[in-house]
Amino acid sequence: MNSSEFRRRGKEMVDYVANYMEGIESRQVYPDVEPGYLRPLIPAAAPQEPDTFEDIISDVEKIIMPGVTHWHSPYFFAYFPTASSYPAMLADMLCGAIGCIGFSWAASPACTELESVMMDWLGKMLELPEAFLAGNTGKGGGVIQGSASEATLVALLAARTKVTRRLQAASPELTPGAIMEKLVAYTSDQAHSSVERAGLIGGVKLKAIPSDDNFAMRASALQEAVERDKAAGLIPFFVVATLGTTSCCSFDNLLEVGPLCNKEDMWLHIDAAYAGSAFICPEFRHLLNGVEFADSFNFNPHKWLLVNFDCSAMWVKKRTDLTGAFKLDPVYLKHSHEDSGLITDYRHWQLPLGRRFRSLKMWFVFRMYGVKGLQAYIRKHVQLSHEFESLVRQDPRFEICAQVILGLVCFRLKGSNKLNEALLQRINSAKKIHLVPCHLRDKFVLRFAICSRTVESAHVRLAWEHITELAAAVLSAERE
Amino acid sequence: MNSSEFRRRGKEMVDYVANYMEGIESRQVYPDVEPGYLRPLIPAAAPQEPDTFEDIISDVEKIIMPGVTHWHSPYFFAYFPTASSYPAMLADMLCGAIGCIGFSWAASPACTELESVMMDWLGKMLELPEAFLAGNTGKGGGVIQGSASEATLVALLAARTKVTRRLQAASPELTPGAIMEKLVAYTSDQAHSSVERAGLIGGVKLKAIPSDDNFAMRASALQEAVERDKAAGLIPFFVVATLGTTSCCSFDNLLEVGPLCNKEDMWLHIDAAYAGSAFICPEFRHLLNGVEFADSFNFNPHKWLLVNFDCSAMWVKKRTDLTGAFKLDPVYLKHSHEDSGLITDYRHWQLPLGRRFRSLKMWFVFRMYGVKGLQAYIRKHVQLSHEFESLVRQDPRFEICAQVILGLVCFRLKGSNKLNEALLQRINSAKKIHLVPCHLRDKFVLRFAICSRTVESAHVRLAWEHITELAAAVLSAERE
Repeated sequence: MNSSEFRRRGKEMVDYVANYMEGIESRQVYPDVEPGYLRPLIPAAAPQEPDTFEDIISDVEKIIMPGVTHWHSPYFFAYFPTASSYPAMLADMLCGAIGCIGFSWAASPACTELESVMMDWLGKMLELPEAFLAGNTGKGGGVIQGSASEATLVALLAARTKVTRRLQAASPELTPGAIMEKLVAYTSDQAHSSVERAGLIGGVKLKAIPSDDNFAMRASALQEAVERDKAAGLIPFFVVATLGTTSCCSFDNLLEVGPLCNKEDMWLHIDAAYAGSAFICPEFRHLLNGVEFADSFNFNPHKWLLVNFDCSAMWVKKRTDLTGAFKLDPVYLKHSHEDSGLITDYRHWQLPLGRRFRSLKMWFVFRMYGVKGLQAYIRKHVQLSHEFESLVRQDPRFEICAQVILGLVCFRLKGSNKLNEALLQRINSAKKIHLVPCHLRDKFVLRFAICSRTVESAHVRLAWEHITELAAAVLSAERE
Repeated sequence: MNSSEFRRRGKEMVDYVANYMEGIESRQVYPDVEPGYLRPLIPAAAPQEPDTFEDIISDVEKIIMPGVTHWHSPYFFAYFPTASSYPAMLADMLCGAIGCIGFSWAASPACTELESVMMDWLGKMLELPEAFLAGNTGKGGGVIQGSASEATLVALLAARTKVTRRLQAASPELTPGAIMEKLVAYTSDQAHSSVERAGLIGGVKLKAIPSDDNFAMRASALQEAVERDKAAGLIPFFVVATLGTTSCCSFDNLLEVGPLCNKEDMWLHIDAAYAGSAFICPEFRHLLNGVEFADSFNFNPHKWLLVNFDCSAMWVKKRTDLTGAFKLDPVYLKHSHEDSGLITDYRHWQLPLGRRFRSLKMWFVFRMYGVKGLQAYIRKHVQLSHEFESLVRQDPRFEICAQVILGLVCFRLKGSNKLNEALLQRINSAKKIHLVPCHLRDKFVLRFAICSRTVESAHVRLAWEHITELAAAVLSAERE
């Protein structure tokens, strides 16, 4: 395909994309296909000779779309949102064309420098403490990771290296293996499974701290675990606090947990994957109070800040904690500027070597929405979740299962888990809307997450109407 | 931005992209900027009110482009290629619009299923052993990782889990920490730095095996290290063999190393990040002989197979080796189909949870080029590197430093490292072409990698003419 054909096909694709987004409401949100549906629909091997673009685009409708879960449908209320906006798509087109691999400053200076500045812009929107910003001379700074899972793992590995070096400096006879065997990390029993996975990968113990009645990690429970482990000869070194848990969007008590981490010399990482975007609104910023005690902080603009996946924003107070943990310098990656101090080689901040020019998406989105536009977007979602909450509260058959703070409502029919499993099963079989469940303690709970960029009050009300109809059917089936 | 504005701006962006690609040859391949150039050019904080698209696109030329290293310029001969093609860009636009996060089958069945089938297509193009293919009932299969670094790390972690379980089954009193302390992995002294990093992250010893005169790892040297380590009470468990090393595109001897790994029960991972794409050509397929001994195999279509970054293809013979190492199943990610056996939840195959619909890029590229088109592309690059090689060989002032097999030529002026450093410095200061160096043993060597999709014989000849002019100047400066 030459560039003149690309001009033609690219414009057709722009229209296809716009048509898809405009018409998404009329597509069934969750597909009808069964496992294995796709393989029989396409050849067993790649063609020897080229197919035409017409063939391919017609196969998109025939083969791909019937198997797509439409995350951007206004009837999608599952998981958490994943961002989608036109400015981000435009930026991604540019990113694809430039196609640089920005592992070092020299590999494409604009890629590295725009990222540092965008992470400062975003940090200022959140009113992060100055220590997390790069500026010209800062010791901290931000980096775009691929996902919150990677950010947690990077933080854990940096903390592991740091404590190992500290202990070896004090007791040179200690081997890394002997130290690792004693290291222990903590997180709430409400934390995302990726935290447990980071512990597994990093080869360290990870203990779940029982959360309180509001599903929050408190200092008292953490302190108890730390004391017990220290008495048993273990070495507490790392804590992940969650702001906005996946199950019910609860918030660990940073103002309690933070000082304890500092006192015990444990690295504090904050995972605010979903909730972080809300902190750009002054009325939600208090939820981030205590971030000043953290060593690293992460949230996903690719969830709720209109920057398409992937864009996971991570800040650290001491960039040398990351670069010290990962820096290896082969000659083919060396360049004349690398020790200047003014610059950043992001490959030392992350797990993979390669990286795309993802800060373009932030730049386009922040500028084309403006901070006020982004705040308005967050507020609209929070308002819609409260609207859904009030619908639920007005129906005595239902109960709200956790405080509604941002865009997630956890609710259930009063009654057994079996009843609620039956309700969810009916909802997801009907495929008019899509939800996923969670467990809160021993309760099976339905999660209603405001997700789509285009969701409006009308969609939320239709969804509730649909849910209550199915609930009535489930309740009457139970009585029979 | 609403969809009608996106239709307009998207088409303008398509033209901007096409103009950029058409005019890239006239842009200076390496930028003139100094570290810190960008920050003063843009505001210190995000705007409160929206900027216009015109403002932004004009800033792209003013602020971004002057700081871009143009990886797709036909005068870019640095590192290894990174893929760029129009079909991949079109697919990425569609991927951005669908915007699903395919961590499980249910999260978007088409995303998972197309990936499994595309990985089979690609595996067949490479004539991978049947055991690596998924088919309907295979025990192996392929997955798209973000980068070769991640693939290496995933393989190492899976191998670590596997050996730990095996040893604990035999000796239940062994703790994971005690085992990890004894684990030892091997790779050639020519392997990419990401292998060393995987060892660091995984918390295991990684030893470099001295390569032979052709920069290849041989069984004899590996065997020697394994015997020595076993005698010292260590546990050899993992080997990374490289096909196409970063420094000089050398090939470890798989037919020797493979059987040794099998005999010693060490997981064999093959990293063919760059060279793998060439194996779709029958005349290069022999370079992959011995893959049948491997447990996992990886290469990057995003390097040399016209699928834009990121798309790193990884296959395993036993998918349960990966899922066994990483599987954690919270209720919000459960779905009714997950135990059916027919389907795949790719989150258990990778480090992050989230993933884009990257197989669309493979599907578009494989169909719009056809296998023959892709083979022709590889062959053209290899031919161009041999053309450059023969130019170098005709000039008695220069020497070729490693066998030219694919698209990379390692060369230098006969003489001191200082002389060659001076030559490279002149080349990269002139900025007409861009190269990076490597060390081969104690020699400082220049790497000339055929990179751009649009590079032709004329560019290679111009580059050589330019290099010889600068070489003459360096040599005459030396004589003075």
